[in-house]
Amino acid sequence: MSERSVTHSTFAIERKYPAAPERVFAAFSDPAKKRRWFAEGDEFEIEHYALDFQVGGREEARFRGKNGLTFSNHTVFQDILPSRHIVFAYTMSMGDKRISASQATVEFLGTDQGTLLVFTEQAAFFEGADGPKMRQDGWTLLLEALGKELSRT
Amino acid sequence: MSERSVTHSTFAIERKYPAAPERVFAAFSDPAKKRRWFAEGDEFEIEHYALDFQVGGREEARFRGKNGLTFSNHTVFQDILPSRHIVFAYTMSMGDKRISASQATVEFLGTDQGTLLVFTEQAAFFEGADGPKMRQDGWTLLLEALGKELSRT
Repeated sequence: MSERSVTHSTFAIERKYPAAPERVFAAFSDPAKKRRWFAEGDEFEIEHYALDFQVGGREEARFRGKNGLTFSNHTVFQDILPSRHIVFAYTMSMGDKRISASQATVEFLGTDQGTLLVFTEQAAFFEGADGPKMRQDGWTLLLEALGKELSRT
Repeated sequence: MSERSVTHSTFAIERKYPAAPERVFAAFSDPAKKRRWFAEGDEFEIEHYALDFQVGGREEARFRGKNGLTFSNHTVFQDILPSRHIVFAYTMSMGDKRISASQATVEFLGTDQGTLLVFTEQAAFFEGADGPKMRQDGWTLLLEALGKELSRT
């Protein structure tokens, strides 16, 4: 029998922020805020970043690493319930090669202390992909960067 | 704490067809064939069906049941490896209400007898949705209809 060409995996990350759900949600919906914690960093040069935050709208990001390799994300927003949840589908490419397609859900749960964010990724990895462990590590770092964004005054 | 508004679930269905992977794949890529097994049926009237089978392309389907209720699917193709796999993201709506967002993978594995098709859905169900059991039952019926399509001469 021919071999399977897709590996499926689901993971979830929970993180608490001392900020109301409305404020955490705004860090996803506001292009300037989202770009700051999601796209900017020391490791990569941003070649392109655009966010159209609405159902059916797209987010496009392309980065170039110090080794010259490019990475890009193509995202489409599938469902948005303001300050409650965001569901998006995205593919990730290294150079011209698409390495994964995922659906991700971000839930914003109000608590006495602020917000419990639950990030759930339902991923399909193709040949040559990073795989579940690296993907979860990547989002863990991004959700730390989101915490720094929220601590700005 | 506020309640979660999304329920995640993954299920897989396997089905064997006495036809080569190229032929089973064509029943997904050819608009006339896909419409026949995927959209046509006695239970619903097709109000709209359109398929643009390419990465980034869309499939749109809208049905009206005998009770007057409409159902619609909005699909975007995320990855296509001809005769190997198709990955698509889709939302389903009842009337104007979006009830789910999913990523689905169809893998076509060549065997001595034809094709083993593995359908994997990674779903996020919203309030008022059908849920994993009904969704899996729905795809099971569709994959039976695909079998009938493939048995056409």
